[in-house]
Amino acid sequence: MKNEKSTPSNRRNFIKKASLASAGVLGLGQVHAHNTSFENTQTINLPNDLTILFQGDSITDAGRSKEGYYANHTWGGLGAGYAMYAAGALLGKNLNSKIRIYNRGISGNKVHQLASRWEEDCLQIRPDVLSILIGVNDFWHTIDFGYKGTVKTYEDDLRKLLDRTLKENPNLKLMICQPFVVKGGTAIKEEAWFPAFMAYQDAAKRIATDYYASWVPFQKTFDDALKNSTVEALCPDGVHPSLGGSYLMAQEWLDVLGKMMK
Amino acid sequence: MKNEKSTPSNRRNFIKKASLASAGVLGLGQVHAHNTSFENTQTINLPNDLTILFQGDSITDAGRSKEGYYANHTWGGLGAGYAMYAAGALLGKNLNSKIRIYNRGISGNKVHQLASRWEEDCLQIRPDVLSILIGVNDFWHTIDFGYKGTVKTYEDDLRKLLDRTLKENPNLKLMICQPFVVKGGTAIKEEAWFPAFMAYQDAAKRIATDYYASWVPFQKTFDDALKNSTVEALCPDGVHPSLGGSYLMAQEWLDVLGKMMK
Repeated sequence: MKNEKSTPSNRRNFIKKASLASAGVLGLGQVHAHNTSFENTQTINLPNDLTILFQGDSITDAGRSKEGYYANHTWGGLGAGYAMYAAGALLGKNLNSKIRIYNRGISGNKVHQLASRWEEDCLQIRPDVLSILIGVNDFWHTIDFGYKGTVKTYEDDLRKLLDRTLKENPNLKLMICQPFVVKGGTAIKEEAWFPAFMAYQDAAKRIATDYYASWVPFQKTFDDALKNSTVEALCPDGVHPSLGGSYLMAQEWLDVLGKMMK
Repeated sequence: MKNEKSTPSNRRNFIKKASLASAGVLGLGQVHAHNTSFENTQTINLPNDLTILFQGDSITDAGRSKEGYYANHTWGGLGAGYAMYAAGALLGKNLNSKIRIYNRGISGNKVHQLASRWEEDCLQIRPDVLSILIGVNDFWHTIDFGYKGTVKTYEDDLRKLLDRTLKENPNLKLMICQPFVVKGGTAIKEEAWFPAFMAYQDAAKRIATDYYASWVPFQKTFDDALKNSTVEALCPDGVHPSLGGSYLMAQEWLDVLGKMMK
């Protein structure tokens, strides 16, 4: 199953067989080349009628206005982070299409908090494409805020959430974004984060593979960018990206979307 | 002087001769080809240390957070409009540089309101590049809000503001953005706006020419985009652009910046 394309029909097939398969058997997910250009978005083959939902924590939220249900036309309705950058490129380059883009990231969220608002903030929106970036708080809050969840809590909760979602909408195109950390950020206690946080990244990757989701490798986005930049310029506290960092995330995300929609 | 490049030395020269020259004698400003790609930003030759200031009204403000003086790293500090899109592209594609980008647009502003906060919101920031988008309220508020200023008020006030700015910083690189309107927007009373608003656009263009500023032709941005889109998708009320519209404005702005920095 190596490099098999992520499609809803693959996934339906997988879901039937899931009880027989272990994560290890399912093998590696897709490999995405890094692309530093917005240009690939011009070739993204989008249906004329498409609903995209960004879900996650503060990195997705990015200070978005919580007013308004359908935010394409609202100042700040998609926040001021990677979701807004990606949305603008999609909307600005597909002037003819009826793309509806929603951001329902909420600052501080862990997976169980997504689950508690999932009916309203995902299922009722009925996205065609669902992008989830979650996990940094599932770990971080165990270090700095007394949260008791483990990596197993994270993985089990996220699998349950996806099962619930796909049961309602088996044709959903799913994007799992890699939770990331930038070493040297002001909020990062290195001895606590490394290598413990990598277990959360591994869990997210396993889930992406098992659910035939497209994988958005944000850790690589930042690791690559750091070769020519600084933590302060890209992600000052190690968790929340700058505008430049958000722009690079959007490029990565668009690159993966483009491959998924081919 | 047709097609003469806009440079501070040209401008210094101009300022010395200004009392002898009429606007008519100074001729046309630069002609900018429309470019629908972010790619040109990769070739923008930016100095390593550069301060860019966006000034204007709600279109520039775009719901920005008013906290924080230096906003590169703040959610929403640059708003969620064209300034943020342009800033992200510049920061994300110039990972090595020390670019500082400020947004000091304030919703509802007319030129005289810029002037009243200019010391703090422009002169003290000491930008190397100043981009101004102002004028739609100078007209609109005469139609719908009882404002008594005329196009002469607008032009005189903007010239005074630029004289004051250039006296403090003769090396400033200046970008004058064309105030624009999208016919068919929900806030636009056609018989009142057309052709009256065109006089404000003409005044802005005259000023750009006289001050050797780079001209950002936003009316053309929208007119071109409307050939393949709708008012609702680009600029629903005719004044405030959607995310897609903001993205297209950023492309136009970056295109002009790239030519100016050559």
